[in-house]
Amino acid sequence: MNIGIVGATGLVGQTFIKVLEEKKIKFDKIKFLASEKSQGKDIFFNGKKYKVEKLTEESFDDLDVALFSAGGDVSRKFAPIASNKGCIVIDNSSAFRMEKEVPLVVPEVNGRRSLENKGIISNPNCSTIQCMAPLKALDRNFKIKRVVYSTYQAVSGSGNKGIEDMKKGINGEECKFYKKDISYNCLPLIDDLLDNGYSKEEWKMIQETKKILENEDLQVTATCVRVPVWNGHGVSVNIELENSFNLEEIKEVLRKEKNIILTDEIPTPKDISGKDEIMVGRIRRDISTENGVSLWIVADNIRKGAASNAIEILEFLMEEGNLCLKDQE
Amino acid sequence: MNIGIVGATGLVGQTFIKVLEEKKIKFDKIKFLASEKSQGKDIFFNGKKYKVEKLTEESFDDLDVALFSAGGDVSRKFAPIASNKGCIVIDNSSAFRMEKEVPLVVPEVNGRRSLENKGIISNPNCSTIQCMAPLKALDRNFKIKRVVYSTYQAVSGSGNKGIEDMKKGINGEECKFYKKDISYNCLPLIDDLLDNGYSKEEWKMIQETKKILENEDLQVTATCVRVPVWNGHGVSVNIELENSFNLEEIKEVLRKEKNIILTDEIPTPKDISGKDEIMVGRIRRDISTENGVSLWIVADNIRKGAASNAIEILEFLMEEGNLCLKDQE
Repeated sequence: MNIGIVGATGLVGQTFIKVLEEKKIKFDKIKFLASEKSQGKDIFFNGKKYKVEKLTEESFDDLDVALFSAGGDVSRKFAPIASNKGCIVIDNSSAFRMEKEVPLVVPEVNGRRSLENKGIISNPNCSTIQCMAPLKALDRNFKIKRVVYSTYQAVSGSGNKGIEDMKKGINGEECKFYKKDISYNCLPLIDDLLDNGYSKEEWKMIQETKKILENEDLQVTATCVRVPVWNGHGVSVNIELENSFNLEEIKEVLRKEKNIILTDEIPTPKDISGKDEIMVGRIRRDISTENGVSLWIVADNIRKGAASNAIEILEFLMEEGNLCLKDQE
Repeated sequence: MNIGIVGATGLVGQTFIKVLEEKKIKFDKIKFLASEKSQGKDIFFNGKKYKVEKLTEESFDDLDVALFSAGGDVSRKFAPIASNKGCIVIDNSSAFRMEKEVPLVVPEVNGRRSLENKGIISNPNCSTIQCMAPLKALDRNFKIKRVVYSTYQAVSGSGNKGIEDMKKGINGEECKFYKKDISYNCLPLIDDLLDNGYSKEEWKMIQETKKILENEDLQVTATCVRVPVWNGHGVSVNIELENSFNLEEIKEVLRKEKNIILTDEIPTPKDISGKDEIMVGRIRRDISTENGVSLWIVADNIRKGAASNAIEILEFLMEEGNLCLKDQE
């Protein structure tokens, strides 16, 4: 199995590399791809030095799988080229997420969908990913009617540009990346505004949640806000369930999920930063509606919200035999 | 009219002084009161130097009105003493807010309630105050069924202790005031946790909203989160209305309110800091429910959320003749 990292010098790209090392994933050959301006840069992986190669159509000729995180435009151009050459693409951009034939996967929720891929598998939006395991568990047991999300999203979600922009703001310099100074401030608009009044980020959360949970009746709304946190997204989730419940049942259901850390403490972005689990807390009955429950979810948006989730998809494919080492073929 | 400031050295107390100066409110005598440890400290007001006096039972003998912001314990002890001596108390603490005979007032929403006072008028919680004018306008025109709040609350809401604690966190020192490091972090718990799973802060928003809007059928829930912002609270508000609407009607209704700045831009805590208005934006139809609307509200939590609102109550009483200068009596 030969693997390629597209966007290897970016924040998610660098985390792909870190997580591949940590998980000791075995493969035959690895290749680091990026735009021309990063060509020739050194990348260290498992103690060995590699050079970044320029991404071209030929980059995929000898690859079996490629992890993409270089923005929607790069994905739109190169993911179809890669998959036409027989290279499976796991794409972190939003380019193909809502396409019918493209699986949108959080492995512990709908991992088997990844086996239906036609060459491209999409990694969901960071804020969406971290809510899927708890919502799936609640939907399975109590059927969800409606979800109201309000997000608290870290600047790392915008990659290195977001981090650099907040540093500028803190140092009293002019912020250029975000529409307003993000330092010690909250920006209630992420990505562009759509005609329907939602931001693109909010619309992604709404559409992706429905696709991943595969519940046509599910009603979802979202407000997405950038907060002055380096890393780790928080989401305040208000849920209306179809069926009655008691809180202990809900906690029991969530406790059984392998990727969820359930806590009675105060789960914060700093607590979860660097980890691949999601942390769920502040679980309580919502007194304003019949079968309502509120909770708070944090996750490392660069790891579970992006790189780790993509690599968990890769692991799923490998376990199911869709991708294997050459000497095992 | 003789006026006293109780808690004169605190963050809200200092803002009482600033707002009284700015608004050029006329009175006969002013007195600055605080605990023993602040006794003798200098206070400058309208270019004149005053000494902070120690708060005692006798402090109120010659006062007609006192603005309290020295915490619940001080209010519980001294507000009844003051009011028994004929001094009207406008109290910023939560001590009396939910007592039936105590008006809970946002002047532009229910100012006339302040005239029913029996000696004590409560200033609502900061996060509640900033949502009242928009919600009242929507309730009056479309009747509100349910509100889901998620807050983004600045450290100034905890007074100087909150600000100092965030400075410590930023400098890599141990935070001692908040339960966890607030710097570049979000803490999804404000104040203590109640047995029903809500925090005290959330419970205040729920109860106070119902009391101020005087709508018994109103269903409210809240998630209150501290964010690493110096000053200015944000609230993501999801509202279900009884009656149908179009968005232009809603905007028109909000535009008519004198204290609301309606904007199509991105209203942030930094934009509203230092102002007495509230800013409302991101108004959009919620696609997840029949008559749903979402909006985002920011306000200066120390000014409109505390000091300015209290002083607007004072102005209301003065305009209505409940408090007047000695030479006008």
